[in-house]
Amino acid sequence: MWQLYHFPLCPFSRKVRLALSEKGVTHELTLVYPWQAGDAFFALNPAGRTPVVYQPEKKLTLIDSQAICEYFEETVDKSPLILGTAAGRAEIRRLTALFDEQFFADVTAPLMFEKMKKRLVYRQPPDSQALRTAMRLAHEHLDYIDWLTDTRRWLAGAQLSLADFAAAAQISVADYLGGIDWSGHDSAHSWYRVMKSRPSFRPLLAEKMEGIPPPRHYADVNA
Amino acid sequence: MWQLYHFPLCPFSRKVRLALSEKGVTHELTLVYPWQAGDAFFALNPAGRTPVVYQPEKKLTLIDSQAICEYFEETVDKSPLILGTAAGRAEIRRLTALFDEQFFADVTAPLMFEKMKKRLVYRQPPDSQALRTAMRLAHEHLDYIDWLTDTRRWLAGAQLSLADFAAAAQISVADYLGGIDWSGHDSAHSWYRVMKSRPSFRPLLAEKMEGIPPPRHYADVNA
Repeated sequence: MWQLYHFPLCPFSRKVRLALSEKGVTHELTLVYPWQAGDAFFALNPAGRTPVVYQPEKKLTLIDSQAICEYFEETVDKSPLILGTAAGRAEIRRLTALFDEQFFADVTAPLMFEKMKKRLVYRQPPDSQALRTAMRLAHEHLDYIDWLTDTRRWLAGAQLSLADFAAAAQISVADYLGGIDWSGHDSAHSWYRVMKSRPSFRPLLAEKMEGIPPPRHYADVNA
Repeated sequence: MWQLYHFPLCPFSRKVRLALSEKGVTHELTLVYPWQAGDAFFALNPAGRTPVVYQPEKKLTLIDSQAICEYFEETVDKSPLILGTAAGRAEIRRLTALFDEQFFADVTAPLMFEKMKKRLVYRQPPDSQALRTAMRLAHEHLDYIDWLTDTRRWLAGAQLSLADFAAAAQISVADYLGGIDWSGHDSAHSWYRVMKSRPSFRPLLAEKMEGIPPPRHYADVNA
């Protein structure tokens, strides 16, 4: 069986878990905190990052969330997530990269550093200026999701795609860390409620990261 | 005809130019400096980043270097760059992401900021500590390329692939900015000389960025 190395607040692990679940790929989770990982994990991934997917029977290791998603897209027919014409697929990949790279750099990464890593690793309080900047940039990204969901059925077009799961994965981590304020973003909020209520999303919302409680609304699919 | 918006020291534009050239996709170059770009460029790409590929007849815009490369991989049969089995393709995408993300973050981005953007935009001298850190991290990445090229014909395996072009694109920008020291990296250096001597690479090496002269060895395919 596939094994997925992850930790609960890794947005890229969440993206892969959502894709595997949607595509019906059964897998076991192995918890690893990259900042505490030992030699065994670095032997799997010299870059020392989650997610890593490993198949012991085939001795096959897959690394990088997008490479992992492309692999299962090519090998599992069920629930295509990078679908449509070549131009449509390019739009799905553009938006997936936008959330994986820019939303992550602007919002998720600073929140993870200030509210998770400083607490668990450095034993320091968060920097309130950095948190304010991340939340301001989150509003800009939510404005863009408002525009997308006002003009399209799903983020990349008429069909649910990997772009929706990549975006929801980033937002769910930011929301866990208290960085998402939906006021003024009704369209984006409606889209996210639909994402939250999918069966693939439920296990993620039920998980807690030790020492870091989520806000009360986090796991409520109606909130 | 396809139009590629780029600037000479954008490593992601270089990756796309190399892929288009290898695949025989004719295209026109349009120079754009993202930090000076006007409304017309932001209308094409709201994220304001290069590269952007545009096809006026089809009114088709492609954004994000990997989404662009995947599009041409799917639509142009000549010279496949993401090739082989699903596992082999995952390895090509893993290494492409490693250079696009980690080499870029560790080496190319700080060099571009210190030696290009500070000179052209902020009129400040580079920070020598930041340059030393980037060059130290470059050595670690070159160690990894040594290991790959000692154990494989090309970076991702037996075949030349997008991983080689993504890596060479990053290295070529770092080398232009004086950040690459090949001492102790004979295997990586031999591989890079082979990349440099490909016809697709020549136009890149001939280009200069105004106000920033490259070191003498930069365009010499034997150096």
